[in-house]
Amino acid sequence: MINVGIVGGTGYTGVELLRILSQHPEVNIQTITSRNEAGIEVAELFPSLRGHIKLKFSDPVESELNQCDLVFFATPNGIAMQQAQTLLDAGVRIIDLAADFRIKDIAEWEKWYGMRHACPGLVAEAVYGLPEINREEIRKARLIANPGCYPTAVQLGFLPLIEAGIVDNQNLIADVKSGVSGAGRKAEVHTLLAEAADNFKAYGVPGHRHLPEIKQGLSNIAKEPVDLIFVPHLTPMIRGIHATLYANLAAHIDLQTLYEQRYAKEPFVDVLPAGKHPETRSVRGSNLCRIAVHQPQGRNTAVILSVTDNLVKGAAGQAVQNMNLMFGFTETLGINFVPLLP
Amino acid sequence: MINVGIVGGTGYTGVELLRILSQHPEVNIQTITSRNEAGIEVAELFPSLRGHIKLKFSDPVESELNQCDLVFFATPNGIAMQQAQTLLDAGVRIIDLAADFRIKDIAEWEKWYGMRHACPGLVAEAVYGLPEINREEIRKARLIANPGCYPTAVQLGFLPLIEAGIVDNQNLIADVKSGVSGAGRKAEVHTLLAEAADNFKAYGVPGHRHLPEIKQGLSNIAKEPVDLIFVPHLTPMIRGIHATLYANLAAHIDLQTLYEQRYAKEPFVDVLPAGKHPETRSVRGSNLCRIAVHQPQGRNTAVILSVTDNLVKGAAGQAVQNMNLMFGFTETLGINFVPLLP
Amino acid sequence: MINVGIVGGTGYTGVELLRILSQHPEVNIQTITSRNEAGIEVAELFPSLRGHIKLKFSDPVESELNQCDLVFFATPNGIAMQQAQTLLDAGVRIIDLAADFRIKDIAEWEKWYGMRHACPGLVAEAVYGLPEINREEIRKARLIANPGCYPTAVQLGFLPLIEAGIVDNQNLIADVKSGVSGAGRKAEVHTLLAEAADNFKAYGVPGHRHLPEIKQGLSNIAKEPVDLIFVPHLTPMIRGIHATLYANLAAHIDLQTLYEQRYAKEPFVDVLPAGKHPETRSVRGSNLCRIAVHQPQGRNTAVILSVTDNLVKGAAGQAVQNMNLMFGFTETLGINFVPLLP
Amino acid sequence: MINVGIVGGTGYTGVELLRILSQHPEVNIQTITSRNEAGIEVAELFPSLRGHIKLKFSDPVESELNQCDLVFFATPNGIAMQQAQTLLDAGVRIIDLAADFRIKDIAEWEKWYGMRHACPGLVAEAVYGLPEINREEIRKARLIANPGCYPTAVQLGFLPLIEAGIVDNQNLIADVKSGVSGAGRKAEVHTLLAEAADNFKAYGVPGHRHLPEIKQGLSNIAKEPVDLIFVPHLTPMIRGIHATLYANLAAHIDLQTLYEQRYAKEPFVDVLPAGKHPETRSVRGSNLCRIAVHQPQGRNTAVILSVTDNLVKGAAGQAVQNMNLMFGFTETLGINFVPLLP
Repeated sequence: MINVGIVGGTGYTGVELLRILSQHPEVNIQTITSRNEAGIEVAELFPSLRGHIKLKFSDPVESELNQCDLVFFATPNGIAMQQAQTLLDAGVRIIDLAADFRIKDIAEWEKWYGMRHACPGLVAEAVYGLPEINREEIRKARLIANPGCYPTAVQLGFLPLIEAGIVDNQNLIADVKSGVSGAGRKAEVHTLLAEAADNFKAYGVPGHRHLPEIKQGLSNIAKEPVDLIFVPHLTPMIRGIHATLYANLAAHIDLQTLYEQRYAKEPFVDVLPAGKHPETRSVRGSNLCRIAVHQPQGRNTAVILSVTDNLVKGAAGQAVQNMNLMFGFTETLGINFVPLLP
Repeated sequence: MINVGIVGGTGYTGVELLRILSQHPEVNIQTITSRNEAGIEVAELFPSLRGHIKLKFSDPVESELNQCDLVFFATPNGIAMQQAQTLLDAGVRIIDLAADFRIKDIAEWEKWYGMRHACPGLVAEAVYGLPEINREEIRKARLIANPGCYPTAVQLGFLPLIEAGIVDNQNLIADVKSGVSGAGRKAEVHTLLAEAADNFKAYGVPGHRHLPEIKQGLSNIAKEPVDLIFVPHLTPMIRGIHATLYANLAAHIDLQTLYEQRYAKEPFVDVLPAGKHPETRSVRGSNLCRIAVHQPQGRNTAVILSVTDNLVKGAAGQAVQNMNLMFGFTETLGINFVPLLP
Repeated sequence: MINVGIVGGTGYTGVELLRILSQHPEVNIQTITSRNEAGIEVAELFPSLRGHIKLKFSDPVESELNQCDLVFFATPNGIAMQQAQTLLDAGVRIIDLAADFRIKDIAEWEKWYGMRHACPGLVAEAVYGLPEINREEIRKARLIANPGCYPTAVQLGFLPLIEAGIVDNQNLIADVKSGVSGAGRKAEVHTLLAEAADNFKAYGVPGHRHLPEIKQGLSNIAKEPVDLIFVPHLTPMIRGIHATLYANLAAHIDLQTLYEQRYAKEPFVDVLPAGKHPETRSVRGSNLCRIAVHQPQGRNTAVILSVTDNLVKGAAGQAVQNMNLMFGFTETLGINFVPLLP
Repeated sequence: MINVGIVGGTGYTGVELLRILSQHPEVNIQTITSRNEAGIEVAELFPSLRGHIKLKFSDPVESELNQCDLVFFATPNGIAMQQAQTLLDAGVRIIDLAADFRIKDIAEWEKWYGMRHACPGLVAEAVYGLPEINREEIRKARLIANPGCYPTAVQLGFLPLIEAGIVDNQNLIADVKSGVSGAGRKAEVHTLLAEAADNFKAYGVPGHRHLPEIKQGLSNIAKEPVDLIFVPHLTPMIRGIHATLYANLAAHIDLQTLYEQRYAKEPFVDVLPAGKHPETRSVRGSNLCRIAVHQPQGRNTAVILSVTDNLVKGAAGQAVQNMNLMFGFTETLGINFVPLLP
């Protein structure tokens, strides 16, 4: 059993971490902090957790977090970077579910996130927590940058193609659709049900913060700079991401076999049989990424369909997968949920 | 470990049984039958189960079912009654998730369900599987009539009031709202998304099949005939039932304490603190019934709010709760899910 | 043609007023005010109005409003009462879509709305704008209190029963379900799509501001104090109210005929044939209230189903209906929309 | 006033035609046919039309249709081609909302639609009813092939780029998302609310019937064969299509100006200001297509966002627009609806 702390457990990644960790056989949730909700029972804010979590939100007092084996940051961007060094110095390992340690190029990060980085030195040390790419580094890491929801679905979708070196890496297209929980549990007009239901729209077409993260990840895979168009959309559902990916093929190869072989040993990536179309609900509440591979009309364009639950494989589930790796637990321990359908 | 069979696993109660049983530590799913889908992999029909269920649907061959310790009927009404005697004779225990054994009055059953009953004798033996009322009988039963989704939410809501003998049993009102999965996985126009989304309606106001089941259950509790108005509604969500119950109080009593005491030891009934309102998503995917008790403006009317997930506590989860009782497992084994929120 | 002004046109009743008035043949929209959005084009905030409304939001400068024939207040509660006297003095007529003039009992209003009333004198003069009850008074009014959305659906549903004097006026129950737009276009967590979709809950059971309004209206009809239990619910749809109303019958009478006769000449109340159930989408975008009348199992309880679009008959459409009456236009002019289905 | 008939008015394009035509000042709806619903009142099937349509569905008797000035076919594919010649011979003009006359290449049509064409000769005569391209031909036509919903949104989105000859016509991509009403009012499992809500999926990636229609239309514009990848998706909303279109630019040009100029005089195409993202609800219930033009990060890829209401501009509204042109009415007459938002 390890003792874990959660900083900022009042958003959707927070409540999802609580759902998962409260059932994890090797985890004791020692503390959950929230400046705004300090003193309130967690189950008062999230009645779904009544009977499963008895903790109250506590003020983020450093000393208690220092006693944890692992701290998850489920905070807005810019918080983890303020506290990481102190915790690491105290021997606490960290998984940051926000973006503070995702982008290696500090200037690029500062441009997209609009603030100065508080600890550039740690960015170099941080391991990007996508187990399908960095499994061994994750096992040894003190500090994990947990990937964004869009980048997870997009990178897992493109990975086999780019690794195989068979696509034009300068003209990738990622047309991605997200459920509204991806926008977080913030009071905003545009994600009200009366605004977002029975509605569909693209947003951030000129540029979205996940673009540099995706480009960095794909470039690392390609071992050369990769360029892509990334168009996110808001779709009227709660959970789920569907990435529709387009790549021009530079070689003839059996894409179905390529994907099946690449992911044969991955516990959380499921390549569907040829001709299928994954649906987001087929991964609802689970840590799975399901992928289908198409080459319409035999043309030279691969169309890859990749779905995840943005709060699980796209956030909290992947964080726990990283935790399992860091602490030597079975990788699937406590996150092998059967998706909830319907 | 017990061997279980599922007859008719292609509907929503079937896929939910599969979700639950595939994770249950004491269950081996031996066979799943479906006349229409025989030969098809279960995971082909329900991609959410890929990696969790390797079975194919098989033709309902009697001999295989005979080898099970327990058979669940997740079939339309009128199927279980055809096969129950043979299975019982072979020593197989039965949980029927349909309505064949719910109503003790055969003539009443035949009126509401529009067919002749095939085995009236077994109806007398069958135990109504609402553990909060019949726990001890369930432990000893060979044949369980698993309650309907509406009746579960309504009976658990009214139970403490009626047991306490403090309400007018002739003028109860149950105004109940159900998600669309309650109508099953049948191709019908009125439950299409384009018909049922962004829409709300009552249905079956002149009479609904769950009315006699509710009246029978409440009358058993009251030890006198109970009468009520039951108005079901269709609400544009997938899962969830919300019962709003009205009863005229004949005595002054602390309703909050009454409910808390009655349900103090029930693992799956959660009485909310005074003044709260339960929401259906707070039980999504779980076997819980959450209840709140109100007495608006201090008037002589109790307003009880009771929510369940119609596919779990209202169907498959309650069936597994009954199974746990019948086979001496811990009552909560394998069904102690944390609700999925958001 | 009359010149109208709209104060506070940035909420849902505001944009709905704009949709309706921009197509009304006798209306020139002269000014729309919003302190926060002053200088912004209306069509920038509401792209649905591009090409139909060319105005910008203007600062609420008194002089311009003074030049209108009619001013609609689509503001939060407590605004109209500050400005009404000045406008009336300038000869401007007023329709307030908020609650400032709805409750005749000032103390009662101040209790429920939590503020001191700024002009109690005008409350006495104000006419409650429910044409099916107050048509003639509305024609002559300078100041209209436009009814709330819940009160409209509930009063129209109970009206024939109470007028006929055949129900127990002390034990009415109104179980009402509203789409989320009823909560307005405010940034709040509980009405986010990720919170309110696939979810159902009651709220305000201990007491809701529309309760005194409903009681006042029904008492006026009954010519005696009426008491009722009012339980509002939030349902995951955008528009629509469904009231399920329960009343104990004190006399035997043909309810279907009663309702058909009472509403025979009402252009916006539609009594469905016996045995039907209205659905909210059947009035979506229209000014209609559709009603069905039931008496389940021949018992002494009337169950009335009443549906409206909360933004049209429950707000902006009814306001324009009142305007038509006040200015001598055909009552249905510009609001005879065919509902949008699906 | 013209007399119109509707063949097959029981689907979503049928009820939408009725909504529009019942309010059209120059139309008398003379007959609505439906084999299945003959004798039933239209308003019985579609309660939204109560008070607006008094007709009953009639058996498709030829003689009555022969007396119409215009007949709309709102039927499944393969019906209109059986009856067209007889009606034309009787002097009746025809607008087919199905696909019978959309594809000029008969062999191609037969391959995608899986049946023999009954009147290839008329296909040559038929005018493709996209007014923004074929306005003058439409005015003179006897027989209109009303475009499909996807093809309308995609063609209007690509039109200015292709006309200008500035894109690579061999590598276009159309990633398109549709509301569920696009699948029609047929009882099918995959479009049930419990299946399609809170869910997102692609379908038909290997090939969809609208692909040849889109390719034909774009090739006509380009005056050379155009090739594209077309990926349709099902999104959990009722109405609306959102096309996200990708094209490689072969020349530097101000795309915003190009689009604004091309559509300056089009009453139903609205080019949004630079940097905006259209949302489907901004055209809900209206005949508009709203388009935004992007060139992310200044790269050589144009990203065009195009939204329509699939039942209006994508079906019934465009049909009435074509009718207005054919009969010399003002093009916008009776279809200048303000979108319903929220």
